[in-house]
Amino acid sequence: MAGSTFGNHLQITTWGESHGTGIGVVVDGCPAGLPLCESDIQKFLNRRKPGQSRYSTPRKEDDSVEILSGVFEGRTTGTPISLVVFNKNQRSRDYGDIASYYRPGHADYTFDQKYGFRDYRGGGRSSGRETIGRVAAGAIAVKILAQLGISFFTYARAIGPVSIPQTAADLLTRLEVSDKELHRQILADPLYMPDSSSSEKAQEYLEACMKQLDSAGGVIEGIITGVPAGVGEPVFDKLDANLAKAIFSIGAVKGFEIGDGFLAAAASGSSNNDSFRIQDGQIIAASNHAGGILGGISSGAPVIYRAAIKPTPSIASHQKTVNQAGEEISISIHGRHDPIIVPRAVVVVESMAALTLLDLMLEHMGAKMDSLRKFYP
Amino acid sequence: MAGSTFGNHLQITTWGESHGTGIGVVVDGCPAGLPLCESDIQKFLNRRKPGQSRYSTPRKEDDSVEILSGVFEGRTTGTPISLVVFNKNQRSRDYGDIASYYRPGHADYTFDQKYGFRDYRGGGRSSGRETIGRVAAGAIAVKILAQLGISFFTYARAIGPVSIPQTAADLLTRLEVSDKELHRQILADPLYMPDSSSSEKAQEYLEACMKQLDSAGGVIEGIITGVPAGVGEPVFDKLDANLAKAIFSIGAVKGFEIGDGFLAAAASGSSNNDSFRIQDGQIIAASNHAGGILGGISSGAPVIYRAAIKPTPSIASHQKTVNQAGEEISISIHGRHDPIIVPRAVVVVESMAALTLLDLMLEHMGAKMDSLRKFYP
Amino acid sequence: MAGSTFGNHLQITTWGESHGTGIGVVVDGCPAGLPLCESDIQKFLNRRKPGQSRYSTPRKEDDSVEILSGVFEGRTTGTPISLVVFNKNQRSRDYGDIASYYRPGHADYTFDQKYGFRDYRGGGRSSGRETIGRVAAGAIAVKILAQLGISFFTYARAIGPVSIPQTAADLLTRLEVSDKELHRQILADPLYMPDSSSSEKAQEYLEACMKQLDSAGGVIEGIITGVPAGVGEPVFDKLDANLAKAIFSIGAVKGFEIGDGFLAAAASGSSNNDSFRIQDGQIIAASNHAGGILGGISSGAPVIYRAAIKPTPSIASHQKTVNQAGEEISISIHGRHDPIIVPRAVVVVESMAALTLLDLMLEHMGAKMDSLRKFYP
Amino acid sequence: MAGSTFGNHLQITTWGESHGTGIGVVVDGCPAGLPLCESDIQKFLNRRKPGQSRYSTPRKEDDSVEILSGVFEGRTTGTPISLVVFNKNQRSRDYGDIASYYRPGHADYTFDQKYGFRDYRGGGRSSGRETIGRVAAGAIAVKILAQLGISFFTYARAIGPVSIPQTAADLLTRLEVSDKELHRQILADPLYMPDSSSSEKAQEYLEACMKQLDSAGGVIEGIITGVPAGVGEPVFDKLDANLAKAIFSIGAVKGFEIGDGFLAAAASGSSNNDSFRIQDGQIIAASNHAGGILGGISSGAPVIYRAAIKPTPSIASHQKTVNQAGEEISISIHGRHDPIIVPRAVVVVESMAALTLLDLMLEHMGAKMDSLRKFYP
Repeated sequence: MAGSTFGNHLQITTWGESHGTGIGVVVDGCPAGLPLCESDIQKFLNRRKPGQSRYSTPRKEDDSVEILSGVFEGRTTGTPISLVVFNKNQRSRDYGDIASYYRPGHADYTFDQKYGFRDYRGGGRSSGRETIGRVAAGAIAVKILAQLGISFFTYARAIGPVSIPQTAADLLTRLEVSDKELHRQILADPLYMPDSSSSEKAQEYLEACMKQLDSAGGVIEGIITGVPAGVGEPVFDKLDANLAKAIFSIGAVKGFEIGDGFLAAAASGSSNNDSFRIQDGQIIAASNHAGGILGGISSGAPVIYRAAIKPTPSIASHQKTVNQAGEEISISIHGRHDPIIVPRAVVVVESMAALTLLDLMLEHMGAKMDSLRKFYP
Repeated sequence: MAGSTFGNHLQITTWGESHGTGIGVVVDGCPAGLPLCESDIQKFLNRRKPGQSRYSTPRKEDDSVEILSGVFEGRTTGTPISLVVFNKNQRSRDYGDIASYYRPGHADYTFDQKYGFRDYRGGGRSSGRETIGRVAAGAIAVKILAQLGISFFTYARAIGPVSIPQTAADLLTRLEVSDKELHRQILADPLYMPDSSSSEKAQEYLEACMKQLDSAGGVIEGIITGVPAGVGEPVFDKLDANLAKAIFSIGAVKGFEIGDGFLAAAASGSSNNDSFRIQDGQIIAASNHAGGILGGISSGAPVIYRAAIKPTPSIASHQKTVNQAGEEISISIHGRHDPIIVPRAVVVVESMAALTLLDLMLEHMGAKMDSLRKFYP
Repeated sequence: MAGSTFGNHLQITTWGESHGTGIGVVVDGCPAGLPLCESDIQKFLNRRKPGQSRYSTPRKEDDSVEILSGVFEGRTTGTPISLVVFNKNQRSRDYGDIASYYRPGHADYTFDQKYGFRDYRGGGRSSGRETIGRVAAGAIAVKILAQLGISFFTYARAIGPVSIPQTAADLLTRLEVSDKELHRQILADPLYMPDSSSSEKAQEYLEACMKQLDSAGGVIEGIITGVPAGVGEPVFDKLDANLAKAIFSIGAVKGFEIGDGFLAAAASGSSNNDSFRIQDGQIIAASNHAGGILGGISSGAPVIYRAAIKPTPSIASHQKTVNQAGEEISISIHGRHDPIIVPRAVVVVESMAALTLLDLMLEHMGAKMDSLRKFYP
Repeated sequence: MAGSTFGNHLQITTWGESHGTGIGVVVDGCPAGLPLCESDIQKFLNRRKPGQSRYSTPRKEDDSVEILSGVFEGRTTGTPISLVVFNKNQRSRDYGDIASYYRPGHADYTFDQKYGFRDYRGGGRSSGRETIGRVAAGAIAVKILAQLGISFFTYARAIGPVSIPQTAADLLTRLEVSDKELHRQILADPLYMPDSSSSEKAQEYLEACMKQLDSAGGVIEGIITGVPAGVGEPVFDKLDANLAKAIFSIGAVKGFEIGDGFLAAAASGSSNNDSFRIQDGQIIAASNHAGGILGGISSGAPVIYRAAIKPTPSIASHQKTVNQAGEEISISIHGRHDPIIVPRAVVVVESMAALTLLDLMLEHMGAKMDSLRKFYP
């Protein structure tokens, strides 16, 4: 379990380094018969591509995906789907200095401690480019789930200290915004922040950061609607536990919450409990402090979660560190770095959430004898 | 993967319901030759036992553990250790009403949706008693890790809105408190809150809660010292990702953070990065915003994490809900419930953290060819 | 992966030693709603109990099973089923000698090499009693599969050099024997050998063995009818590969075959291929050299497999060996040992086959998008 | 668990179809610091390449491997090694007929039953080309194990009815042949059959087969020397059980044995037990009926196993079958097929054995507290 594989039913295995030949993923367990072509996946990769706004690295990463297996005559065959993005635009430059010292906030030191040495070019395996495989696989999961009536809304809830006042889940629930309109708002904003006044303030904050050769973090929020009740396993493979792992396995994540999250810790039981009531003959929750999950199992209410993303560790201002010779030195990291990775990480978070949910939905299919009897009549 | 098994190398499998015959765990993959007896485990179980203070349920749960296998002549044999706590004090009462309606904040509704019916006695499998198996296994993991120089400090950082001003990690780092003294302070406090002035305020808050027939939540903080650098896998099985899943799989957890967590999202890169420096010939981090993990791999600095615990959902004040017949009803939950579960959950959190760390330490042993050559000379 | 857990969807975890407190199993992932009581399981355990004939040990093992969890009001709840058989009849005797030397054909030496020491009482974890957990779990799997129209016929095909001339699969296929009658014949024979003339010869052979203080082995054959086409994964988790592992994980197994097995190696392609034809509008195989599996996936034809069981290693005649002090010694193993374990192993083989098949049937439920769309409408 | 991943510590994930873009494998968990280049792997692939003798298909498969990740400056980095062989020589032809009917002995019918349709070009995922990924990964495992003193000898023991009289294990043990000489003999023979007189007879047999437009099977035998005692887990992950699964997951395998295998079933305990004795101060087995494994754990004696390989199902003589329209038809399969696959399968079997052994050797590293204390001082 060297941990490049994720999931039990739908399993993804990622590989590749920032400056190696390419980055890829093998998706095993994808149900047969899904129409799939490269543009389904490319669409997702484009959301994480740099250069979409002035708040991402000006590096040109021309990440075009190729399907190497598992699709025949336009449909998935049920066998592994191998996807690759060849690295085309990696500058050949001298990495001599970066090879010898440990950048603060990066995995240089810990990789050396673990493996004895490391591929230091562009961060090697610990580069953000590793997430290309996740996003390529996530595109497939989101497409499958869309066919089952499940929608994902993922966006920047906060950039640095600037936060959207209320969750989009409330807007959706109160029908103040349609699904389509919310998706449009998210994609239209340069920070994927679907609230124009917050986004403006956030952009001002980022400009100030950049002037100071500094970087910023933020909070990504995700809402999943249409999740059927009953998904998630009651003990270790709770839907929220698996989401926590999935999201926390993304490089820069430092916190994760479901529903009210840390606010729930300070609330009282009477205000935090969600009453049940009947609407149109259906049992629904009158509020959604729980974020759509009770006892690790989906309740049918929208699933709401949040991820804290740390500021980009690569900054151009001076920093102290040490080198492999054990000397204290001062460095400043030049190059084409993102002043913030939150907007590009939005689709990574959505991808991991979709892979997690689909995996547990496949698991759930065998939970009842009735289901087996119906499937094997 | 019905999810009652956790871990890859040290695997635990829990079983049992609140009001069934017993609760148990099978621990597979425990290294051979560890001295182990029932009191090693009982000590841990006693920390989660109710009735330790007036802030836990007055139910008497006389949870005494029995070792059924895997130990011979006082030492672990390397084969599965089966541990059981027989349920002795479950009141035989009429559960007729609870069987028919869905308690807000509980898993009653989602279990019915998943399985078609449920063992409704005391919450069945979704009861907090399920954690007995985790704690019994955790006691073994903590004992193993202690022999490798690793210590756990786990305590209530916040109760409702009352929080200890600074993390104990700072105290430990600045040597303002010794390991032994910190352990003593934690265990001496009725809320496992090692700051007497905060604890007093928290107790006042809880008294007020109880008078209003309401309940409270809180934040549990954990610090792990002595973790060697290099533990954790760089992609999906990051140390922080696996901790997130482990802790989030505990019933009432709604949020999880590493290091500065959500605060990091609002910080700048220059303030959030931890510089490296040399101390006594060793590379160390000058600060610890990262919480001891970089790129998913331990750096050697103390691992710091936090879990948000929601308020106990069982409250005696009136609540609206629905029953299985689809009628809206009003209920009030009587019985012997904890007004707060944070203090009892402290040892559960510590147990899950220890199991996670040990599992990844076993994985790490094969990371280098040099290690294999040394082991198989 | 210390390997006391088997399966991915229906997972069993066994524990216990020959002379410890008990032997048990946790069955996780059993679908909810299956009627289950202790006698369903006891019936299976009785088939492996010693003392059923003069060809098994006269030890009295009063193996009665208790259900500790996972069943409520007579039906499985979907949560882990914990089953235990407490060891009641283990003679307290002096094991001093057995502790110090290595019995040929047993795991004494290899356990010491692996773990540094061992529980030497009755073989400890490597005792045949470990299979009690497998059989208890297997009883559940067989019951579930029976509800889906799947039947198991498992019997001694050969005892020492005495073999039944033709496989019962042929008899079933040619309708020369009914399912019910075949089951009756198997259970009625003291060796579970459903051919009276072969059984008589086998019994004569065993009598001769016993007089010479020696032991015998044999071949167990299993037939599974009613398996739907499409079960098994095409690469590593082939139905035959998983059966091979499952059966080979039983202590005394030294060989495994599917269909014609080793005979196929000497056959020609033209005689070994099974033609397809149409019968009653269905595609069927005109012969069954393949044993019901093509490319790792069930074809709908009966699954046929065979396991070679070695002779009981515990024999009363003199043997040479060494002790822990590194001295060559001569021993003779007294005690109440089976002159042959084949008849008692029949139900163990059937149990492992049933667990394997059910596990892959659960996996198969998510193989097609159509299945997902039907399940999540 | 769609089953394209094998192993727990060293995990391989294969992908690709016969006539798709390529065939590949991701090797995760390879220890860091192993010198590795493409020729290490190519050497192995060349052993399974067709056209090495007149007994394999005259198809030209120019299988050259590329390393896409996981190797930096000539050494493995500890992160996933992605290997690919692009399909270059797949004839573009009309597959119209093969698409519509079910070839006897192939997986056409079962794939359709499982997935609803299939990639019919050259067998798609069920093609023997799938084993390219296994062999590429196996080359790495064999290289690692060689550094730990472990050697593999794998060869054709039987071709059709022609068998080498005695196992090479006896020759090695009696020092009648050196390791180097045995390797030379295996590689020098066109059938990888290290006994010239047997090989000649086998070649005559194959010539006769080919004249009759028929095909042949055989038995592959493997010997592993230098395996340290203690490897393998005592219950479900026995060394022999995992080998059985690994080897049985290769397409054409119909039987598997360890040591004396099916012969042991007919032997007596007194003749089948291997006595221990002392040689040069070491405990060794005086004979090796057990094939180097006791209770699922290696004993230090050579591991000996055998796999039965069925005759190639693609034959040019007439066969009856059915088509998708449900009509009975007669076919004869033309094209460039192997009259026997045994020689080409030898390296596949060796690869799977090596991957299995290495995986369990990595698992074994954490079996004792002493090992942990030494590793984490």
